[in-house]
Amino acid sequence: MTFNNVLIGQAGGPTAVINQSLWGVVSTLYDSKKVGAVLGARQGVAGVLKGDLIDLRATGRRRWKSVAQTPGAALGSVRHKPTEEECARILEQCTAFGVRHFVYIGGNDSAETAMLLSSMARTAKRELSIWHVPKTIDNDLRVTDHCPGYGSAARFVACAFLGDEEDNRSLGGVKINVVMGRDAGWLTAASVLARRHEDAGPHLIYVPERPFSLEAFANEVDAVVKRIGRCVVAVSEGVRDAAGKPIVNSSERDSHGNLQLSGSGQLGDQLAAYLKAKLGLKRVRADTLGYLQRSFAGCVSKVDAAEAFEVGRTAAKAALKGKLEGGSVALLRREGKKRYEAECALIDLARVAKVTRPLEAQFLAGNSDVTPEFAAWLSPLVGDLPVTERLLHKSWTR
Amino acid sequence: MTFNNVLIGQAGGPTAVINQSLWGVVSTLYDSKKVGAVLGARQGVAGVLKGDLIDLRATGRRRWKSVAQTPGAALGSVRHKPTEEECARILEQCTAFGVRHFVYIGGNDSAETAMLLSSMARTAKRELSIWHVPKTIDNDLRVTDHCPGYGSAARFVACAFLGDEEDNRSLGGVKINVVMGRDAGWLTAASVLARRHEDAGPHLIYVPERPFSLEAFANEVDAVVKRIGRCVVAVSEGVRDAAGKPIVNSSERDSHGNLQLSGSGQLGDQLAAYLKAKLGLKRVRADTLGYLQRSFAGCVSKVDAAEAFEVGRTAAKAALKGKLEGGSVALLRREGKKRYEAECALIDLARVAKVTRPLEAQFLAGNSDVTPEFAAWLSPLVGDLPVTERLLHKSWTR
Repeated sequence: MTFNNVLIGQAGGPTAVINQSLWGVVSTLYDSKKVGAVLGARQGVAGVLKGDLIDLRATGRRRWKSVAQTPGAALGSVRHKPTEEECARILEQCTAFGVRHFVYIGGNDSAETAMLLSSMARTAKRELSIWHVPKTIDNDLRVTDHCPGYGSAARFVACAFLGDEEDNRSLGGVKINVVMGRDAGWLTAASVLARRHEDAGPHLIYVPERPFSLEAFANEVDAVVKRIGRCVVAVSEGVRDAAGKPIVNSSERDSHGNLQLSGSGQLGDQLAAYLKAKLGLKRVRADTLGYLQRSFAGCVSKVDAAEAFEVGRTAAKAALKGKLEGGSVALLRREGKKRYEAECALIDLARVAKVTRPLEAQFLAGNSDVTPEFAAWLSPLVGDLPVTERLLHKSWTR
Repeated sequence: MTFNNVLIGQAGGPTAVINQSLWGVVSTLYDSKKVGAVLGARQGVAGVLKGDLIDLRATGRRRWKSVAQTPGAALGSVRHKPTEEECARILEQCTAFGVRHFVYIGGNDSAETAMLLSSMARTAKRELSIWHVPKTIDNDLRVTDHCPGYGSAARFVACAFLGDEEDNRSLGGVKINVVMGRDAGWLTAASVLARRHEDAGPHLIYVPERPFSLEAFANEVDAVVKRIGRCVVAVSEGVRDAAGKPIVNSSERDSHGNLQLSGSGQLGDQLAAYLKAKLGLKRVRADTLGYLQRSFAGCVSKVDAAEAFEVGRTAAKAALKGKLEGGSVALLRREGKKRYEAECALIDLARVAKVTRPLEAQFLAGNSDVTPEFAAWLSPLVGDLPVTERLLHKSWTR
């Protein structure tokens, strides 16, 4: 029995380009004689535990290229973080399936799982290399300049605010858009790319890295309304007060016992009701951008898609070389270049596992804005945005 | 004093292509020597009443082409339907501004305003022609095959469901998406374009044209979950029970005294909470697609953009000819053609004013679906949709 099969899984919330990473791995191995079967675990580690595997070379290259463009996790995903006992069982399953390399595409939780598996495999002297391929729309992984999946989600947020700014200019009032990001404000901050004019929204940007006070919020909205007669607000679903208590009054919990923030309009509705009561405003509307931010079909950043493919490819090439016991892949931005450039680098799993990375202080401006440096940093990851333009305002009188 | 100026206004909820219609009107008159000033009323009739007008030829052609591609109403919009007294004042203002033609871009309410203005002008023997240019994402105008603005909003809804189907397949559970449409289900029905596989969502489509029962809803979701282990639901914001009572428990009213349906996540949250309690399901999520449906930048149907331009152009050309006292424009689909074709026709204002058009019974399938004929009717209006593809499922065992 030979141990040269490769097993791949996807975990956590999907992104618009997570299948590019999958195809990045698979395409590299597709014609390789160094590996045996190229296997996909359905629903991540759940599929490994159950032995629910599919042959990834059963899908032809042409179809694969379409799969790569498809949002969502083509293998199915899982939110479950395996226990140490389950990790032991996963290692046994890998042996039973003749797996030499295990590639796990996911966020920091998946990196932690990969690290645990890797350490247990080493202790047990199993011949198994474990690779983590990063993805997350939250952009909260360490070391890497940014995460695959983030650029496309940021593009969605920017396009939403570009259009909403025009909608708000048309009819006035206050518009609140709630953006994903439980602990990190990277995605909410992306709304700044819609600010094309001095008086354009988002006028206020609230991220979890800064304490949120309802009073200050109402005062800041009031000031914008007094200045320009309307206001567009970007607020992260994860905003909390100075004591760290979430602003949303909800009792719904997800399967990790975390407060359910996405898939509900509650925070937006609550903030809108507060503003109406506090400021006596007539037209206050709230939208929660929701799952569309990570799944909307046809709103992909080209740079993000290419990089997502490349991080997968880098992990597969490293596995083929067979010198390392595993690792993760980071995107390093080349400094001092006129045009944006980034390269993939292999890094230790320990450097990316567990701990997340907040939106950095250097990118924050006061309590309710981000800096121009942030917009400049983000812009190449999102790509050219749709045209929006205003009429020249030349008043006419008879 | 000559009466050859043209005055244009935009009204109601903006669309992604309402500025194409505006440019359709303006571009036709831009170099014409038959008309005097080409004026835009800011915030529709509100601007006419206040004399808040801008010179639309102050904006150059190149900038205009960018404005045409911009979502939202470039002139500003208004929800106010003028009273008879206000209409009399509008006519006086038109005389004061030397206006010979008034073009109003809007839905059925705007057509009604145009009809009233037209009839009052005729009675008073004023030399004034009144034109209505149709727009609405609700697609609820009569006579016309479909409304400019609908195709792009339908495209957004289809792309949202295409991606959400993949997201739901990745992680399972029940996903509810609330779609705009207070009285008509046209936009909610557009979700059907995402159904590319026999087991693909949206699995259930609820429109206001059919009575909505919470019990039946829970039973139908339960049946889908039992069959395929997950469920994607499209539900119109305007669904109501057999007695005509809205399902959403809300006391928020808009400026017309109508129940506020958009700009709130309440209906989705309520339906999700109901399903969780009734069916004991763990993962139920709801998104309310919200204002993005009409404003998202970069999700425009090419056919819709071209037709929106053309209806504006048709009204302007009719005004230039000067034979008629006004009217509206309808899109007529040429029957029996292999490829989709439509032409613009002038129609009486009375045929489009006031009364709206529900999603037709021939397009409805039972209580919670639409027919394949509807998808075939809609498809050319939306254009080619983004690729989504699945892996071939070939199980692997050692």
